[in-house]
Amino acid sequence: MSPRSVLITGCNRGIGLEFVKQFLSMKQPPKHLFATCRNPAEAADLQALQAGHSNLHILQLEVTDESRYASLAEEVGAIVEENGLNLLINNAGILIRTNLPDVTAEVMKKTFDVNSIAPILISQAFLPLLKRAADAQKDAPLGWARAAIVNVSSKVGSCDDNKRGGLYAYRASKAALNVCTVSLARDLFKDGILATVVHPGWVLTDIGTKNALIESSESISGMLKVMQGLNEETNASFYDYAGKLIPW
Amino acid sequence: MSPRSVLITGCNRGIGLEFVKQFLSMKQPPKHLFATCRNPAEAADLQALQAGHSNLHILQLEVTDESRYASLAEEVGAIVEENGLNLLINNAGILIRTNLPDVTAEVMKKTFDVNSIAPILISQAFLPLLKRAADAQKDAPLGWARAAIVNVSSKVGSCDDNKRGGLYAYRASKAALNVCTVSLARDLFKDGILATVVHPGWVLTDIGTKNALIESSESISGMLKVMQGLNEETNASFYDYAGKLIPW
Ligand SMILES: NC(=O)c1ccc[n+]([C@@H]2O[C@H](COP(=O)([O-])OP(=O)(O)OC[C@H]3O[C@@H](n4cnc5c(N)ncnc54)[C@H](OP(=O)(O)O)[C@@H]3O)[C@@H](O)[C@H]2O)c1
Ligand SMILES: NC(=O)c1ccc[n+]([C@@H]2O[C@H](COP(=O)([O-])OP(=O)(O)OC[C@H]3O[C@@H](n4cnc5c(N)ncnc54)[C@H](OP(=O)(O)O)[C@@H]3O)[C@@H](O)[C@H]2O)c1
Repeated sequence: MSPRSVLITGCNRGIGLEFVKQFLSMKQPPKHLFATCRNPAEAADLQALQAGHSNLHILQLEVTDESRYASLAEEVGAIVEENGLNLLINNAGILIRTNLPDVTAEVMKKTFDVNSIAPILISQAFLPLLKRAADAQKDAPLGWARAAIVNVSSKVGSCDDNKRGGLYAYRASKAALNVCTVSLARDLFKDGILATVVHPGWVLTDIGTKNALIESSESISGMLKVMQGLNEETNASFYDYAGKLIPW
Repeated sequence: MSPRSVLITGCNRGIGLEFVKQFLSMKQPPKHLFATCRNPAEAADLQALQAGHSNLHILQLEVTDESRYASLAEEVGAIVEENGLNLLINNAGILIRTNLPDVTAEVMKKTFDVNSIAPILISQAFLPLLKRAADAQKDAPLGWARAAIVNVSSKVGSCDDNKRGGLYAYRASKAALNVCTVSLARDLFKDGILATVVHPGWVLTDIGTKNALIESSESISGMLKVMQGLNEETNASFYDYAGKLIPW
């Protein structure tokens, strides 16, 4: 069973764009796929996908623009109606490489804004629609077909895995996202909503750089499998695209 | 062996004040103990301690005021001279209780500023003095008698331990502090500087509230034991005041 409706942030390129492509080419694609990006008018690849797919809705969202959340949720709500939103994927993110000599408050603040604060507040804003989905599909098993939040984190945010140091702002933002995602999972379980983080692997995108190890197609097909397997037991955990559990 | 010089932030009350008291009453107290607080003129308890202890230096520091870091490091440097600063304890912190319905960007930003960003940038600012200490005491074992950074975190920042959810801003800030402290440990090991986080327990202070379980005297005597035991093996880890290892 696949989710009836999905919203993904940061879809104009990289991992977000590939998520959109793979959701659209599923055997049973979502009835409504909301792909958000900062500048829809300039999102040529996304626009091109819209041709054959009337289920794809491209919506504007700068993730740090809180004043936009309510109208976005309203637009989505008007389309999904009583079925609500089944799956929210907070994917948009930034990586500014700064190490100990050059890390600044400004870089840390900016990175927290996009990578940690936005996903939590966007989850907060979509809570009514997620709850609506959980209620509407009361008989569906817990998971993405009912209601779930998936936050795209990074292994780099793992304390346990931090053997190389550096990358203060990015690591901090993803560790913060991780612990907040566990809070989401704890707070929302009673409502039938699951929440988890995933690590995409080291993926050939602007963030991953040319040194990365895998194509986004491999990353996303792996993450979709992991997300499909999301259930009460795998809730609130940290899996990578290959289904390997990452210690916090 | 105890550290020759120590700097602690947030010393006018709570855990910071008790750290000062216990350092001063050690058999071999630090030669220089720098207790920082926002308003020295109003820090009556700290001022009272100064009477019998010429080794206690009370210095002004609002931890988010980056423009103060350089002059503070200069003041400390002028006193410790070629021996440098052996131990930096980032203790100042805030807890603003917000759960999912009411968490805001503003609360998250403010909490990151004090609890995550400030400790990293203060560590950065004191790096030259910590390195000086590590060089000056080349024959001392790695640890607080040579050079170390101890960041006061909280079990609430552990992903693994997050069974109750909520507390988004505080949890996020301490998880961020944890992963950054591991980065500090990795980045500074080559210089002979260790870095770790400690959890004080649930302590009767303003942050701990009246429901807390232990007095600050018990917390600090426990943390001092843990810090005294800090070595290459316990570096970059997360112990509580009772010496129990907390999973990330
Ligand atoms: N690639 C990897 O190896 C890797 C590894 C671990 C985790 N991740 C995570 O995967 C996610 C996607 O990254 P990626 O690899 O696809 O990187 P990417 O190619 O650089 O794409 C980043 C995406 O996020 C969007 N974005 C950034 N800031 C935004 C904002 N303020 N508002 C709205 N959208 C914003 C970008 O939009 P614009 O085009 O408008 O800038 C873009 O769509 C990130 O969360 C990243 O941390 C990636
Ligand atoms: N108590 C507990 O149960 C517990 C548990 C886990 C972790 N902790 C951690 O322990 C540390 C100390 O907390 P506490 O329990 O002693 O709490 P507290 O009694 O509320 O004391 C907090 C201290 O931090 C200072 N501070 C706050 N914001 C500051 C800023 N912007 N600049 C400079 N100083 C600032 C306060 O100074 P002012 O008086 O000027 O406000 C005060 O000295 C914190 O990092 C806290 O997160 C406490």
